[in-house]
Amino acid sequence: MSTVGKVIKCKAAIVFEAKGPLKVVEIEVAPPKAHEVRIKILATGICRTDDHVLNGTIKVNYPVIPGHEAVGAVESIGEGVTCVKPGDKIIPLCLPQCGKCRPCKNPEGNLCEQSDFFKNTGLMYDGTSRFSYKGKPIHHFANTSTFTEYTVVHEDSVAKIDPAAPPEKACLIGCGFSTGYGAATKTAKVTPGSSCAVFGLGGVGLAVVMGCKAAGASRIIGINRSKEKFPKAKEVGATECVSPLDFKKPIQEVLLDMTDGEGVDYSFEVVGSTETMIAALASCNMNYGTSVVVGAPPSASEMTLSPTLIFTGRTWKGSVLGGLKSKDDVPVLVSELMAKKFNLDPLITHVLPFDKINEGFELLRNGKCIRTVLKM
Amino acid sequence: MSTVGKVIKCKAAIVFEAKGPLKVVEIEVAPPKAHEVRIKILATGICRTDDHVLNGTIKVNYPVIPGHEAVGAVESIGEGVTCVKPGDKIIPLCLPQCGKCRPCKNPEGNLCEQSDFFKNTGLMYDGTSRFSYKGKPIHHFANTSTFTEYTVVHEDSVAKIDPAAPPEKACLIGCGFSTGYGAATKTAKVTPGSSCAVFGLGGVGLAVVMGCKAAGASRIIGINRSKEKFPKAKEVGATECVSPLDFKKPIQEVLLDMTDGEGVDYSFEVVGSTETMIAALASCNMNYGTSVVVGAPPSASEMTLSPTLIFTGRTWKGSVLGGLKSKDDVPVLVSELMAKKFNLDPLITHVLPFDKINEGFELLRNGKCIRTVLKM
Repeated sequence: MSTVGKVIKCKAAIVFEAKGPLKVVEIEVAPPKAHEVRIKILATGICRTDDHVLNGTIKVNYPVIPGHEAVGAVESIGEGVTCVKPGDKIIPLCLPQCGKCRPCKNPEGNLCEQSDFFKNTGLMYDGTSRFSYKGKPIHHFANTSTFTEYTVVHEDSVAKIDPAAPPEKACLIGCGFSTGYGAATKTAKVTPGSSCAVFGLGGVGLAVVMGCKAAGASRIIGINRSKEKFPKAKEVGATECVSPLDFKKPIQEVLLDMTDGEGVDYSFEVVGSTETMIAALASCNMNYGTSVVVGAPPSASEMTLSPTLIFTGRTWKGSVLGGLKSKDDVPVLVSELMAKKFNLDPLITHVLPFDKINEGFELLRNGKCIRTVLKM
Repeated sequence: MSTVGKVIKCKAAIVFEAKGPLKVVEIEVAPPKAHEVRIKILATGICRTDDHVLNGTIKVNYPVIPGHEAVGAVESIGEGVTCVKPGDKIIPLCLPQCGKCRPCKNPEGNLCEQSDFFKNTGLMYDGTSRFSYKGKPIHHFANTSTFTEYTVVHEDSVAKIDPAAPPEKACLIGCGFSTGYGAATKTAKVTPGSSCAVFGLGGVGLAVVMGCKAAGASRIIGINRSKEKFPKAKEVGATECVSPLDFKKPIQEVLLDMTDGEGVDYSFEVVGSTETMIAALASCNMNYGTSVVVGAPPSASEMTLSPTLIFTGRTWKGSVLGGLKSKDDVPVLVSELMAKKFNLDPLITHVLPFDKINEGFELLRNGKCIRTVLKM
């Protein structure tokens, strides 16, 4: 029996309050309104940002359904939706691309003004929610909410992808992989034959390494305190790895030594620490080096540095979702995955059924996984 | 009688010690050695960096002949010099371009490793000086030394220019004009129709305004505490000017208000103050804005800022000599001057005979001039 136009009852994981538990319960999902799309989630990754929703370190409205990295299939569409049709395989976009706002129209921009990152409402554009639990509305998260069997997103937040893409792999293109890979290929625009340093070898850091490799970098230095991360970094493209704990001198001086005083052409901070951000900046060439801040900095943090680090010619930049235009670039990355331009298998260490979502968060907190993917 | 191969006696301005006087005396200039060029200086500008040599705020070896922004004519060449011949009109290059080092070979680099900025010897490549006074060697400055009727530079530090170029104007292309103009056209790569903000409307700031205009910016906001600078800024291309002293709120908030919350596409710091550097960064669009540090920061200074200013996508960069490849780009700028693509007249407020060099420095210190040019 068709569900089109009807409320769907399904399982979803709700965070009821900051630092509260994540509970899998039965919710109701309303049909999509005009320009909205209702999606059956097929697989969804657990990202550290979701854990920040659980532990309250990012500001959201509770109760909320987190999750923002997924692959789904369109169940039904609201009036006026033309970009997808029922049955299409899609990736929900945690960073929308409306195509009309100034960042969307700027060739270098991607922070679409429709992103709830700015508004922090946890609601659809009309100011209401499509989720309810025991008759009360539940907030959306990051224009997506994927820790649910069904979700509703605006058509600005959906990208149609190759129907043959495996959901439990391609879901990483919705956030973690794209954030790292795009930082190398789109934000830094790594050039063939160049040298790169990647600070932090978690999932996103490994995606940066893969982006540097795909862009043709000849030298990719992975930096991580724990050497446990080195074998996988080398598997995905790092040509060498160093731990700051092995040296008495600051890591930026180690990198200058390793590059005959030149510094690397490109450096990436994928830790989210202000100290590492400055070390990464100082590690790239003083004249023509580029350093990209990929790791989200602690809120309200400050950093102190010498302006000379900038003045002599370095470029320092940041990017969200790797600087990618989500709706344009996500389908391209899925095609590249299918063409084996890169391989996501090394990034996915655990696949669990959706019901074991709390087990997935434990793996994340204990540093036992790179990415855990939940299958619905 | 030809001077080729002989020592030339001529007038030069020597700084004998930090904070000591600048004295015009008669010196001896030795003939050029292999790969060196002896130059008759025709006109030379007085730049703030020269005043830093006088007051000791930059580290150089004394006694020294400052000056680094000039037009001259080749008097004679040493063995192996092929890029110029006697009689050629040239601009000495305070930032050399050897063409062989890594910054020279990098498309985005320009801090040639032959720059004395790094070595701080005040000597020719062979470790000796071509200047002497009362039998004792006098140091060179910035690979050039132009406050003298004759100087000797390495062939890496000389660019042949259009012989029709007027020396008292074209000399500004040796430093001040190129630093500002290049920051807009080469470092920031200002795009047509974009919005720009220029913090600091001295000579280099005005050159940034001219660069923004030449690049097709549709809005150029000049920012300066003293409104006395506004008429000239508007004359060279600023579409509007504001003084931070007219507002209670920080200037970056004023600029956000002026741009409907968007921020400008490009901002330039041409003051050399860390506070203004951060204000300029915060004034450009949080996602796709670019901010360029043009003003030299105070040595050993530090600045404190929120990493969020970078993380959301801004690009922060610096440049020396506007990021230009000196030997390649200086002749092009001279050709553009001759083609009236820009006009240097508004930047030159005073022309004095060389003997009045101390009067020129007084004009600089009192803020009474934009650029004073000395004619030999």
